[in-house]
Amino acid sequence: MRKIIQIKGHIIRDDILKQIDASCEQYNGSYQVLELNIGKKVDDISTATIALEISDEGFTLILNELTNLGISIPSTESPVLLKTSEKDKTVPDDFYSTTNHPTEVYLDGKWFKVQKQRMDGVLVVKNGEIICTKLRDVKAGDAIVCGSEGVRIKTEAAENDDHDFAFMVNEVSSERRVEIAVNQLAVEMKQIKEKNGKIVFVAGPVVIHTGGMVAFQDMIRKGFVSGVLSGNALAVHDIERDLYGTSLGVNLDTGKVVKGGHKHHMRAINAVNKSGSIAAAVADQTIKSGIMYELVKNNIPFVLAGSIRDDGPLPDTLMDLIQAQEAYAQMIQDADMVIMLSTMLHSIGTGNMLPSWVKTVIVDINPAVVAKLVDRGSAQAHGLVTDVGLFLTLLNQQL
Amino acid sequence: MRKIIQIKGHIIRDDILKQIDASCEQYNGSYQVLELNIGKKVDDISTATIALEISDEGFTLILNELTNLGISIPSTESPVLLKTSEKDKTVPDDFYSTTNHPTEVYLDGKWFKVQKQRMDGVLVVKNGEIICTKLRDVKAGDAIVCGSEGVRIKTEAAENDDHDFAFMVNEVSSERRVEIAVNQLAVEMKQIKEKNGKIVFVAGPVVIHTGGMVAFQDMIRKGFVSGVLSGNALAVHDIERDLYGTSLGVNLDTGKVVKGGHKHHMRAINAVNKSGSIAAAVADQTIKSGIMYELVKNNIPFVLAGSIRDDGPLPDTLMDLIQAQEAYAQMIQDADMVIMLSTMLHSIGTGNMLPSWVKTVIVDINPAVVAKLVDRGSAQAHGLVTDVGLFLTLLNQQL
Amino acid sequence: MRKIIQIKGHIIRDDILKQIDASCEQYNGSYQVLELNIGKKVDDISTATIALEISDEGFTLILNELTNLGISIPSTESPVLLKTSEKDKTVPDDFYSTTNHPTEVYLDGKWFKVQKQRMDGVLVVKNGEIICTKLRDVKAGDAIVCGSEGVRIKTEAAENDDHDFAFMVNEVSSERRVEIAVNQLAVEMKQIKEKNGKIVFVAGPVVIHTGGMVAFQDMIRKGFVSGVLSGNALAVHDIERDLYGTSLGVNLDTGKVVKGGHKHHMRAINAVNKSGSIAAAVADQTIKSGIMYELVKNNIPFVLAGSIRDDGPLPDTLMDLIQAQEAYAQMIQDADMVIMLSTMLHSIGTGNMLPSWVKTVIVDINPAVVAKLVDRGSAQAHGLVTDVGLFLTLLNQQL
Amino acid sequence: MRKIIQIKGHIIRDDILKQIDASCEQYNGSYQVLELNIGKKVDDISTATIALEISDEGFTLILNELTNLGISIPSTESPVLLKTSEKDKTVPDDFYSTTNHPTEVYLDGKWFKVQKQRMDGVLVVKNGEIICTKLRDVKAGDAIVCGSEGVRIKTEAAENDDHDFAFMVNEVSSERRVEIAVNQLAVEMKQIKEKNGKIVFVAGPVVIHTGGMVAFQDMIRKGFVSGVLSGNALAVHDIERDLYGTSLGVNLDTGKVVKGGHKHHMRAINAVNKSGSIAAAVADQTIKSGIMYELVKNNIPFVLAGSIRDDGPLPDTLMDLIQAQEAYAQMIQDADMVIMLSTMLHSIGTGNMLPSWVKTVIVDINPAVVAKLVDRGSAQAHGLVTDVGLFLTLLNQQL
Repeated sequence: MRKIIQIKGHIIRDDILKQIDASCEQYNGSYQVLELNIGKKVDDISTATIALEISDEGFTLILNELTNLGISIPSTESPVLLKTSEKDKTVPDDFYSTTNHPTEVYLDGKWFKVQKQRMDGVLVVKNGEIICTKLRDVKAGDAIVCGSEGVRIKTEAAENDDHDFAFMVNEVSSERRVEIAVNQLAVEMKQIKEKNGKIVFVAGPVVIHTGGMVAFQDMIRKGFVSGVLSGNALAVHDIERDLYGTSLGVNLDTGKVVKGGHKHHMRAINAVNKSGSIAAAVADQTIKSGIMYELVKNNIPFVLAGSIRDDGPLPDTLMDLIQAQEAYAQMIQDADMVIMLSTMLHSIGTGNMLPSWVKTVIVDINPAVVAKLVDRGSAQAHGLVTDVGLFLTLLNQQL
Repeated sequence: MRKIIQIKGHIIRDDILKQIDASCEQYNGSYQVLELNIGKKVDDISTATIALEISDEGFTLILNELTNLGISIPSTESPVLLKTSEKDKTVPDDFYSTTNHPTEVYLDGKWFKVQKQRMDGVLVVKNGEIICTKLRDVKAGDAIVCGSEGVRIKTEAAENDDHDFAFMVNEVSSERRVEIAVNQLAVEMKQIKEKNGKIVFVAGPVVIHTGGMVAFQDMIRKGFVSGVLSGNALAVHDIERDLYGTSLGVNLDTGKVVKGGHKHHMRAINAVNKSGSIAAAVADQTIKSGIMYELVKNNIPFVLAGSIRDDGPLPDTLMDLIQAQEAYAQMIQDADMVIMLSTMLHSIGTGNMLPSWVKTVIVDINPAVVAKLVDRGSAQAHGLVTDVGLFLTLLNQQL
Repeated sequence: MRKIIQIKGHIIRDDILKQIDASCEQYNGSYQVLELNIGKKVDDISTATIALEISDEGFTLILNELTNLGISIPSTESPVLLKTSEKDKTVPDDFYSTTNHPTEVYLDGKWFKVQKQRMDGVLVVKNGEIICTKLRDVKAGDAIVCGSEGVRIKTEAAENDDHDFAFMVNEVSSERRVEIAVNQLAVEMKQIKEKNGKIVFVAGPVVIHTGGMVAFQDMIRKGFVSGVLSGNALAVHDIERDLYGTSLGVNLDTGKVVKGGHKHHMRAINAVNKSGSIAAAVADQTIKSGIMYELVKNNIPFVLAGSIRDDGPLPDTLMDLIQAQEAYAQMIQDADMVIMLSTMLHSIGTGNMLPSWVKTVIVDINPAVVAKLVDRGSAQAHGLVTDVGLFLTLLNQQL
Repeated sequence: MRKIIQIKGHIIRDDILKQIDASCEQYNGSYQVLELNIGKKVDDISTATIALEISDEGFTLILNELTNLGISIPSTESPVLLKTSEKDKTVPDDFYSTTNHPTEVYLDGKWFKVQKQRMDGVLVVKNGEIICTKLRDVKAGDAIVCGSEGVRIKTEAAENDDHDFAFMVNEVSSERRVEIAVNQLAVEMKQIKEKNGKIVFVAGPVVIHTGGMVAFQDMIRKGFVSGVLSGNALAVHDIERDLYGTSLGVNLDTGKVVKGGHKHHMRAINAVNKSGSIAAAVADQTIKSGIMYELVKNNIPFVLAGSIRDDGPLPDTLMDLIQAQEAYAQMIQDADMVIMLSTMLHSIGTGNMLPSWVKTVIVDINPAVVAKLVDRGSAQAHGLVTDVGLFLTLLNQQL
């Protein structure tokens, strides 16, 4: 079936013709470029008229893909297709699966911005709003956006900021001048702070093992930390360090294993259990220093998500992961920047929830971890392969 | 304060004198070997009489350490010290923190074997039994073993089996003849099967990505898999593969990214949600092949533990981690062997619960992961740095 | 200065407009697409007319880049610029630096194919031929191709073969079905063998440590190995294994360290020194099995390049690296396929000399090594992250 | 055959009884401890009388091993066995293969200290001295030490220094406080400098890519660098950076790939070739800054060893590896400390030549590289897993 579409967007910059070519190959179709007007610069908007010879199903899929790539297809300015969920936690088979890019839906003759944008969600129309919803939160009877007609993605927002961070956009590698990246990041963080913006950290226990906690505590006191997402281990090791000077039984000043120290982390949990919570343990002076101490003292919120490998856990650790995911999602709401420090698990968890326009910096000494996280994210994720302890020390010097 | 102790055990083989020396240094004490009778072979039992000049606290700690190292101290054949927990989830500060080695407690004039042995637990006396209990399960009023007097560890059991697996005991390295290790493992597994033993697998989604699922499914059908511990991802990718031939949108036969395939894993979850559970989806023929299919068809139990990064999740995934940890612990009860395939998170989770006498094999292409897991385990953990897909193919050929 | 050029080639597929855009930004110029005729398919040839507003120097650089990208610029069908080298091992500053793609030079009214194509060479006109020459081999008085006018690159050859190997083209990852790639490779190798083609292996000592030598020796006997490029270590470890059953003192059958075995590799070198060479040691029956034995017995040539870390070395190891590089270059002359097994050093050395049309397969358990090698190569380099021992065992089963 | 030996040394600390046990198992012998007098502290010297039931050959091997472990066996105070080499580059089969520990030989009634100690050498008696000699330098007619009678090793020297560096002795890991180790290292370096000691650096091009060159140049000017061992790449990238601001075509300040920059490293080599050498290029002001510039200006010697992967190479690069190994060995003569920065190849090369009493620090972001180097070395090698650029910046701040 021959169809003619007009498309508009970054046709050259985003390799749109290659995408159409590949799609036609996969869906046994063919295409012809009838007209192509490209801008003077690669960043300019181009328009094209394309003839497609393809099945109906293939046509729908190509439109869906182009939409996801930020291409606007004027001819699709037709109302979205809404279908009703027949059962809790389920949607019709042709449901529209969201990306993390800013998305709009054409409904009742105008474009609505999607609320709570995240990847791998579904779009539910509720009370005159389009809400990006996790599959498990869909209720029978909900109106679900299906197909891709009447859906469009705006990719501009995310890109504009990219220029500031040009240094880090390049391939993931430890062979880079980290100092330059740290300087750029410090400038960025100071700008966000001046505007009373929100900088959320996702942090693993390596922050403590590498000695980065000194700088991190200072950054909390200076007001550069708006919230912390982590797991049980960061808090346990931090409190163990405060109570016994060790982390997993290793003396943090000398690096030596302390005899009997393997028991320290269980004793730390026991101590907090006696107080009732981390905040209570700070209040009754069981805990006298450290990252958790500074967070409590400075009223900075934190969420500790549980995992199958947790000992204890601390009373503050959320072992109900539905609850933990909600608390994480709450924390990153309106974040201007998310900095992920050496924790693949919690970083992926956070990344899954982040819209594409939030600046994201990933720091890990393992290039494989950085690459995995950057790959999952969109253009906004910047990776730094370096020593987290020295990174925090250097970053704090600039703040 | 001068104290004289007599000790008995693998004094030479397990470097006990070096341990005492280091402890004395840490606790500002000194020691003198008054008498030492060593066996003919390094594996023989030796006895020694040691004079310690040390504080009371240091003395208690040294006894504790020696006990944990499997040294018996006849003079400690005195009743254990029991104290009462004053609050749920808490214990007295000098509680005895367990290892994963077989432990006995001297009570009412005789030695009791500890039930449900695992590391980082506490010992609770209940109904005439000594039960290794997680801190969070302690109730106010429980009788808790404190100090280390009246506690001893038997390390023999674990060692005897080591000889069979000698090949793998060596340092973690990819520069090893994996074929030899696979042959030894196959022999071991066949012996366990003949005795109707229990072989539990901990498996990550890499089993599917690397094509290992074909061999793994065969091993399930042949009866070599007594249970599977995993997370949401293994099941989702396995079901995605069955429904769409892809895993995370990548065609498993050609290795190519499939257009629109990013949506497949959400569609797979949606499909299972419609059926209500994995077993229901197998029953109504939504799922027609794969690892989960074989598990259901062959009545092999599995536990999927949730994590903060999970999409969906599937209805079978336990998002309440207390419940998930209980189910994991249940599964490994009486296991003869645990084989961990490319999943650090679930492997650590399982390892935390395993007593030291269960043979454990860890397979991963990343040497850092294998090293981390082997380090956490005790002598029973054997590491293999290799390609999990080829490993399973080869292993299945031998079974 | 405004200039108008007409270009022809894979303008869409190879992102040529993006390249021009980036170049103009770097050289402070601007451009305008006056005309663009694109083919129906992304693989078709397109033509365009571009107006450039740019300095003379920038213009030359852009032409150079487009040429290197395989774009033909009809207006450049003018004789190449030749300048004379004034001193051995030096060339004029604007010399043309070669890629590893098939290159042609326009001279005396016709296009000449460049001989001995390799990357980072210079083009010397000698005896009516254009020879790709290493800088150190340039003699004072040589005629050197400068600038990029009159130079063009043909990229077609390399691409056509890509389809056979489609599986491996994808991103470097251990999460792939290695079995599928091995099957494709075996088919490919058999085709080359049938046509009496040339398959060169670059092999590190890991081939021995992982037990891959059994399969590799078999492949030599079956005639699938046309030549081997390696270093001192492969041969020493192979001969040590033959003489003492160990590799670096580790028993290859049991994986155990052999007491006194650290001395074995020096004893192996001593033994070969007594015979005078590896071939002589095979002849006098000092060496009775192994990779080197099979190479000698089957008259397969090998080159062992020295390195700063070599012990000994063996009499066959070339410690003069100029000589070693020549011998390597000789070996890969007319190769149809090069398979690199777990040796970064020798693989990079070989990769530097390889023209882009030789199929290259890189196998290593470390993804970082595979990524580094694939990045340096051109489209023809296919990476496999897997266990080299199991890989060779499986590959040999298919041959 | 039953033999009784008396041994003296760190019997407990160095697990000597376990060693004897393992040896007896391998050589089908048995042993009995007749007497054991251990010191009060683990570091004290102990003595023992051991009865061995073992073959003659096994007995010789055990004596050899004990000697290599630093155990003195008074009964072996008998003259060494000397045999004559029958052919250049060869020695009798029972030659004594050296370790890198301080070694003494009993000859003509007294103990001689071995000259030019290194591992994997042979001992040649020449002009009344015992010289540790590479196999390839042995001449027909040389008197070669065979067996292990009359050879002893002193291990004390190496250990005494260990305490200063205690922090780094622990397992290789990126989860350590690098700052603490840097502080200790700076103190150490300043002490060496005050005593006009010698600090040799082994450096890879990562020093430049990570921006560490600024600090490194400063350290050269301050007098903390006595010599540099490296390869062609460090110098080429350093000079490329000086001439064009790029390293392998990447702008070091912005991290962006520069168009046409792939040619820069060949242009840099061409420029040095025109001058004739790096020193000449500094003199004629072709090179105006950088590591090589500072080395030349401050008269600090350097050695660039060639490798099979080198482009060019620079006129200063030694492509004859025999010559390069000699120059390396010359450079480390009398070194007090060797610091190895991100280059496995040259670090192993240097490590092979180093006696065990030279302090060695290995810095790399890849834990596998650090582990490999530390494993090859003896107790004196300290590993730091961290970012080399930040490490140098921090270290220079302390100097």
